[in-house]
Amino acid sequence: MLKKCLMKRCLIFWLVWPVAFSLAAGDINSDHEEFAYQAKKMAETALKEEKAYEILKTLALPGGRLTGSPAAARAVSRATDLMTKLGFDLVKQEPVKVNRWQRGQTEKALVKSKKGGQHRLNICALGNSIGTPRSGLEAEVLEVHSFEELEELKQAINGKIVFFNVPMDRAEPNPFAAYGRAVPYRTNGASAAARYGAVAVLVRSMTFRLDDYPHTGLMIYDENIPKIPAAAVATNHADQLSLWLKEDPHLKLSLMMNCGQLPPVISANVLGQLTGEERPEEIILLAGHLDSWDLSPGANDDAAGCVVAIEALRLIKEAGWRPKRTIRAVLFMDEEFGGTGGRFYATSASRKSEKHLLAIEQDNGGGAPVGLALRGGDKIIEKAEKLKEILSPFGINWIRPGGGGVDISPLIQEGTLAGSVIPETQRYFDFHHSALDQPTTVHPREIELQAIVLAIVSYYFSQEGI
Amino acid sequence: MLKKCLMKRCLIFWLVWPVAFSLAAGDINSDHEEFAYQAKKMAETALKEEKAYEILKTLALPGGRLTGSPAAARAVSRATDLMTKLGFDLVKQEPVKVNRWQRGQTEKALVKSKKGGQHRLNICALGNSIGTPRSGLEAEVLEVHSFEELEELKQAINGKIVFFNVPMDRAEPNPFAAYGRAVPYRTNGASAAARYGAVAVLVRSMTFRLDDYPHTGLMIYDENIPKIPAAAVATNHADQLSLWLKEDPHLKLSLMMNCGQLPPVISANVLGQLTGEERPEEIILLAGHLDSWDLSPGANDDAAGCVVAIEALRLIKEAGWRPKRTIRAVLFMDEEFGGTGGRFYATSASRKSEKHLLAIEQDNGGGAPVGLALRGGDKIIEKAEKLKEILSPFGINWIRPGGGGVDISPLIQEGTLAGSVIPETQRYFDFHHSALDQPTTVHPREIELQAIVLAIVSYYFSQEGI
Repeated sequence: MLKKCLMKRCLIFWLVWPVAFSLAAGDINSDHEEFAYQAKKMAETALKEEKAYEILKTLALPGGRLTGSPAAARAVSRATDLMTKLGFDLVKQEPVKVNRWQRGQTEKALVKSKKGGQHRLNICALGNSIGTPRSGLEAEVLEVHSFEELEELKQAINGKIVFFNVPMDRAEPNPFAAYGRAVPYRTNGASAAARYGAVAVLVRSMTFRLDDYPHTGLMIYDENIPKIPAAAVATNHADQLSLWLKEDPHLKLSLMMNCGQLPPVISANVLGQLTGEERPEEIILLAGHLDSWDLSPGANDDAAGCVVAIEALRLIKEAGWRPKRTIRAVLFMDEEFGGTGGRFYATSASRKSEKHLLAIEQDNGGGAPVGLALRGGDKIIEKAEKLKEILSPFGINWIRPGGGGVDISPLIQEGTLAGSVIPETQRYFDFHHSALDQPTTVHPREIELQAIVLAIVSYYFSQEGI
Repeated sequence: MLKKCLMKRCLIFWLVWPVAFSLAAGDINSDHEEFAYQAKKMAETALKEEKAYEILKTLALPGGRLTGSPAAARAVSRATDLMTKLGFDLVKQEPVKVNRWQRGQTEKALVKSKKGGQHRLNICALGNSIGTPRSGLEAEVLEVHSFEELEELKQAINGKIVFFNVPMDRAEPNPFAAYGRAVPYRTNGASAAARYGAVAVLVRSMTFRLDDYPHTGLMIYDENIPKIPAAAVATNHADQLSLWLKEDPHLKLSLMMNCGQLPPVISANVLGQLTGEERPEEIILLAGHLDSWDLSPGANDDAAGCVVAIEALRLIKEAGWRPKRTIRAVLFMDEEFGGTGGRFYATSASRKSEKHLLAIEQDNGGGAPVGLALRGGDKIIEKAEKLKEILSPFGINWIRPGGGGVDISPLIQEGTLAGSVIPETQRYFDFHHSALDQPTTVHPREIELQAIVLAIVSYYFSQEGI
């Protein structure tokens, strides 16, 4: 549509060239007005049809998609079939070798008090954790509230289960900032405690809320430190355990988990695109990650990101918009265990002749959009500012530096401009990485609005370049 | 706190007057920085404690608060007790004479097909509707999709039940705009149809979603037109009825409702305030409405508005901030039936010596704040712009003309500046006026953020004036 307008401009130029300059300037405005009109029409149909939510159900309802699992393999097929059925160009799977961790069947934590009582705690193994010995392990529990406290207590740690009871700080208005401050206990707590002889760690779940659901997530072992089992405990149960420890500092906890690593397997990133008509080698990338944790279908994390990438392409295609540059959706494999798919994509030999102009990753849940974050300098933000009025009805009220994601960070490191459509996230950590991340927590209108914004932004840059 | 800073400024002036001018300018900035710091601290405590949600449970959990009902009377007492317990100044009830409509025990709609089948439709009487004859009424159903179509069909209307099947337009990104376009069928449909001899109206519920819950709301009879019963039908059942009508245009609907008017009663607005220390007669008003519909506790409509008004006052008080001008929370009675409480408040003799500088009404649900809307000219917006950075962490990303509400509209008509903290509303009509408007649909962090923004805005204007 912009292309047609540009042709019209050429015609005007040759017919009435003495006034062509001013007319051309006028026509740039009318191009923009035409785009605004087309974007409005596209959005009306999108909101009416709410297809994003249908795609979400297709991708998410069959369950969790743990990297390397049979469920993830099924999701790869399903996503490929879906994009093929939607008629995207060059739909393909890009094989990626991934590590495979599995939860196992047993996850059990029993608090044993002196008086003979036993209480079960709701726990789950953290991703990457080793299991306990087959018969489990039993030890006293040492509650700590910071790495500093751990350092001070070092004499007392040997032989204990360290219980990192560090809540996400509710006082922080930005949920991701609060997560960022608490999550090192989950990722690095085990090795920090094992350094002083701990036999296992329990980590308070990463959520603002008090609930009975353990929230899992990645943990990483330091080299040269003994590996010990690591589990998340539901926040209600963390509070209860803390009370019990005040009553009986020597209570024992028995822990049994049979999680562990299996041999690596071949999985895949899934790609589909609308090939650019003028500069197909220049790419606007829309990214989400197809893998999720296994405790739920990962509706927000990150089925939503995959859904809006696919839906944005579908909306562009259905609107009859023909991008000059390629707009490509990539559903990455293995974000949760560290981004294997993203690294593979960036270094793949096939990338060499491609130029990624902009990579937009959606990995903050399916909430209503509130802003557009772009990184890589003032120029792209200035350019995006032209979309402000067009995007405003769909919830975008600011355009600021920021955005990105794990999967596209290798591209960012190579200098690719990047960004994200930022959604409302106050509820995000309520379900994050737990059994609660169900499609019912995503709202059909909110996720559709994200897809609409993504379609407008990606199409705009595909036409205008950067 | 601002006051203390002003005193400091005076001191500097007298001690070092030759450089006083530039220092004073610097000190205005440091006043503002100090306010920013204090606001941040206040918000941290607020988010940690999440008291707004506790207040919500106090006000909303006991059930719906239909104007004039015993439940509304209990809510008046409960709100008064709560504000008294919180130590606000001048907590009082302002008696208001209100009409009293009651739903009655019977609401039944049966579709009777030619083949002898009977299907029950989920309906509820619209507020203000008369009941049917005691034995009910039975008639054929005429489906219409606009007032224009009604005009065209006028010959066919006599003796029928008119079924206004006009969905809220999902294509509209702004939910309130879509509501505004569909709601005239609810408010004015009955008299429009009665003009041509209709015996009752069924109106498709005002929600984007397909659900089994009727969404009630106010309807109004035109003078000199016969009054006929009016009910809302759940959207799923509206779709079903429409299909049945295609199969059998002569199917009959039997309708039985025993709703109706009772004699007027005395109810009350509930007021509480932090009296200004320097200009107590100048008022910043924070408004919500205490009445709700009866099908649910009206958690979003508008317990949330009352809650954030109360919580904003509590936060200001707890922070030790001492307003120069009065900040008053008013929980209005009878917004839903047309704003009796608001009109009474504005005309009350006791208002005469008071000057309302600004009235902020919250009646768009308990969602996360996204913007600040202010009406009354550029000056107040310019002044509010100074709060932009302070408010941004709490979700406020724009300050624009707009805002207001039914309860404060009489004040607005008298020239009072007004506004609203605008929350995210994509989910709002999912529960609006139905059995679904439960406290579980409000998020503790989101409603707390609204209260924080309200506290900052109202305190700022109480110090700075307008």
